[in-house]
Amino acid sequence: CRANGFQILLCGVCVPLKGLTAAKLLVESGLNPVVLEARNRVGGRTFTVQVRHLTGIKKGGAFTQPMYCENKLLTITEQYPSTTYMVRDRASLISGHLKGKSYPFKGPFPPMWNPLALMDYNNLWRTMDKMGQEIPREAPWRAPHAEEWDKMTMKELFDKLCWTRVARQFANLFVNVNVTSEPHEVSALWFLWYVKQCGGTMRIFSTTNGGQERKFMGGSQQISDRLKDWLGDRVKLERAVCRIDQSGDRVVVETLGQEKYEAKYAIIATAPGLNLKMHFNPPLPPLRNQLIHRVPTGSVIKCMVYYSENFWRKKGYCGSMVIEEEEAPIGLTLDDTKPDGTSPAIMGFILARKARRLAGLTKEERKICEIYAKVLGSEEALHPVHYEEKNWAEEEYSGGCYTVYFPPGILTQFGKVLREPVGKLFFAGTETATEWSGYMEGAVQAGERAAREILCKMGKISEHEIWKPEPESVDVPARPFVTTFWERNLPSVPGFLKLLGWSTFLTAAAATGLLAYKKGLLVKS
Amino acid sequence: CRANGFQILLCGVCVPLKGLTAAKLLVESGLNPVVLEARNRVGGRTFTVQVRHLTGIKKGGAFTQPMYCENKLLTITEQYPSTTYMVRDRASLISGHLKGKSYPFKGPFPPMWNPLALMDYNNLWRTMDKMGQEIPREAPWRAPHAEEWDKMTMKELFDKLCWTRVARQFANLFVNVNVTSEPHEVSALWFLWYVKQCGGTMRIFSTTNGGQERKFMGGSQQISDRLKDWLGDRVKLERAVCRIDQSGDRVVVETLGQEKYEAKYAIIATAPGLNLKMHFNPPLPPLRNQLIHRVPTGSVIKCMVYYSENFWRKKGYCGSMVIEEEEAPIGLTLDDTKPDGTSPAIMGFILARKARRLAGLTKEERKICEIYAKVLGSEEALHPVHYEEKNWAEEEYSGGCYTVYFPPGILTQFGKVLREPVGKLFFAGTETATEWSGYMEGAVQAGERAAREILCKMGKISEHEIWKPEPESVDVPARPFVTTFWERNLPSVPGFLKLLGWSTFLTAAAATGLLAYKKGLLVKS
Repeated sequence: CRANGFQILLCGVCVPLKGLTAAKLLVESGLNPVVLEARNRVGGRTFTVQVRHLTGIKKGGAFTQPMYCENKLLTITEQYPSTTYMVRDRASLISGHLKGKSYPFKGPFPPMWNPLALMDYNNLWRTMDKMGQEIPREAPWRAPHAEEWDKMTMKELFDKLCWTRVARQFANLFVNVNVTSEPHEVSALWFLWYVKQCGGTMRIFSTTNGGQERKFMGGSQQISDRLKDWLGDRVKLERAVCRIDQSGDRVVVETLGQEKYEAKYAIIATAPGLNLKMHFNPPLPPLRNQLIHRVPTGSVIKCMVYYSENFWRKKGYCGSMVIEEEEAPIGLTLDDTKPDGTSPAIMGFILARKARRLAGLTKEERKICEIYAKVLGSEEALHPVHYEEKNWAEEEYSGGCYTVYFPPGILTQFGKVLREPVGKLFFAGTETATEWSGYMEGAVQAGERAAREILCKMGKISEHEIWKPEPESVDVPARPFVTTFWERNLPSVPGFLKLLGWSTFLTAAAATGLLAYKKGLLVKS
Repeated sequence: CRANGFQILLCGVCVPLKGLTAAKLLVESGLNPVVLEARNRVGGRTFTVQVRHLTGIKKGGAFTQPMYCENKLLTITEQYPSTTYMVRDRASLISGHLKGKSYPFKGPFPPMWNPLALMDYNNLWRTMDKMGQEIPREAPWRAPHAEEWDKMTMKELFDKLCWTRVARQFANLFVNVNVTSEPHEVSALWFLWYVKQCGGTMRIFSTTNGGQERKFMGGSQQISDRLKDWLGDRVKLERAVCRIDQSGDRVVVETLGQEKYEAKYAIIATAPGLNLKMHFNPPLPPLRNQLIHRVPTGSVIKCMVYYSENFWRKKGYCGSMVIEEEEAPIGLTLDDTKPDGTSPAIMGFILARKARRLAGLTKEERKICEIYAKVLGSEEALHPVHYEEKNWAEEEYSGGCYTVYFPPGILTQFGKVLREPVGKLFFAGTETATEWSGYMEGAVQAGERAAREILCKMGKISEHEIWKPEPESVDVPARPFVTTFWERNLPSVPGFLKLLGWSTFLTAAAATGLLAYKKGLLVKS
């Protein structure tokens, strides 16, 4: 079976959001693309399940961000009857949990009472953001310290920066939560870039005015579902691509079901590592052939616990929990109740090392509800009405979630071929984005950019039109974060100690001088 | 097209040595296996090219080791008219090159003249071997310090161990040469295990009595070629496997050419990362699904320069060069002249970061002969008669060479599933071996072990027969390395400084005591 006459093939072992948005842009430009999707559904790492009595349980990418760059995603969704709603965390309290004790707090980060810890903590975020400023979004391998930082893991960087155990522990959780990996697994250069291209440490970790502000009514997979409806029978499901031949004039793509598709160009819209599911003729160039073996996807199990009542709100809690204990399975939770108050739920993440250790256990064995009861100080947490979970590591066509990470040494050596076309092949995937890479937003940017690369190749647009910044969203603007005088000027722990040393020295010197003066040892002129 | 009736399928996108030896063992046990090989040749990462006038140019795995474990490889080759020959390095001089200066030396490691550097250097090998002793060959993740060492890169360990620049620089080359990767890319636990399971720092780096002692007459690929002849039409070339279905009673394997093979069991005899070339039904379990995205193969370009005459031997050099300059493309060379003195050649390795930087350049642009001329102090090096090279990074069905490495954090989290069967699938590959893993020897051990796992599953052998140690080779025994008193007892640099500090203190104390005595300040009792 061979299908001809297509101008562009969007193929992947999985064609999530990125592929669909690329296809939409191509259709709007008068072209005729076909989308090959390996799974029996679209949406890739966005995945919504319908459960009896409960609607729209999200299991994958879920949040949209109030950033100028998030506008791509909002622009797409504007055209469909889809609305976003705010995730609650502003008015009410977040529950922190550390060393067996719970404490309520407001704002993105847990508070620090110990003055040394406060300095340390403040210095950590300030330094990471400052290092991030040096790193170009579109080419992190060109940062002035790229080589040095890429040879270092985030663990090494934290070893250097952190002086207190409490700051160190939260720094680890910060990596676990944001990239579902361990600090010793990731390159410092890559992680600093990742945080920077999401707008910095405050933006990436915040709910309100940050990465987790809004969710889609009805779940995020619906965006893909609606794009699929719009594209009609151009989208072919259960077509896992296993061979790409571009040795002739056209690209010939073969699926496992032994269908062949031909086109002038193809976009591969998968995470880089999933390029390996395809056999290439001619083989990929050496650097790309090695890159795709070097960028694994993180490990996370998303757990949804449903309750008959939203008991935490009664106590003034918003449902967000930041849990720093090694024994606790969950590291971070968010309220996942619908905006009208129906289907009260808490969504929790089992992150990185814990996702590997606890896979295969039941929620009872993992004691998820027990930790919620402890942190929220409420017996009601022990009596859920429903439970759902999704271990993304078991998905052959994702390889993990949320996104790929770069181990030390890879970004500087292989980064430059990440979105470099190979003949008639172009590369999308949220990993190739330069803003909110790793998020749904990045997937859209990448898909559109890859589509425009083809339009440029076909002479329909000029080269400088490939990268097109989106105007800021009017409805959901990104508000700047205001830093306080102390946030900017508080010394770091070593800075403070040095200062302490100097002031002790100066005080001692002054006292000695005064004594000498009094004793008449100094000559009065 | 569907082929039935096979009891075992040995499939891989590539079936090198490991697959063939497994097949041989199975045939000898009365079974009927079929071997599916993706390439148009057998041998995987062993690859011999025939060039006009020059015979047997090896481009991949080439050396065999005088170890009890190497006996598997020697046993196999004994049955065929294949002979090994010694690589010359004993009687004559090795050429070292550092900071623009060349110096001749004997033995596996370049000498150190600076006493501090000598202490540092000696302590480095001694410590690495000592740490290696703690690590179980068959389960490195169970070492007492497994977690701590796996969170560290070799760069971090060297930062801790090395006090002198000269030791540090050679330590980096040691990693480059042995695993074609950079110290900051690899987990310390993994690298220490790798060196240990090759017999330690001396054994792995030595030519005589070490990892590079012997080569096969006619090239190493011939072992695979002969095994292929022995197996006859059970070996099918150009059958890249793209689908493995074990949802039914039997394993159904599908190739790109749309052939289907059915069997009771299958051995996947590829590097772990190349499992990704296949689509699995049911999907692989979560840990294996993530492992195979996390273990990349190193980067090396093997360069063969042929000369009309063996000019280096006239000068007393053996042709081995250890080149430590950043500007030099090659890090290590070995004489590759045939034992009868024909086709004089030098084989050089472009390693790790350099293999990525210099891919795509010609030998002239890389100035390979220029560096040989400089190191050997001979103009004749500038006039080769022939040149061959192989960049293993461009091989789709290898992904690199010589072997996979484990980035930090992977071995402790995913190592235990490396050779864990999945249903009716068993895993071979030199990476799953426990002795000389990464070498041809490891490939044979792994292939035979996987075959015996199936024999055990079929009730033909008992469980304790799966792992079968090979008796030591009589012809090529491994001689123990004798350490000197000083190698064992020379202090490390910090040890020496402490000693120095103590002796200074004691001397000072003694002198003060003597002075006090003389001045009559001490009370005589």
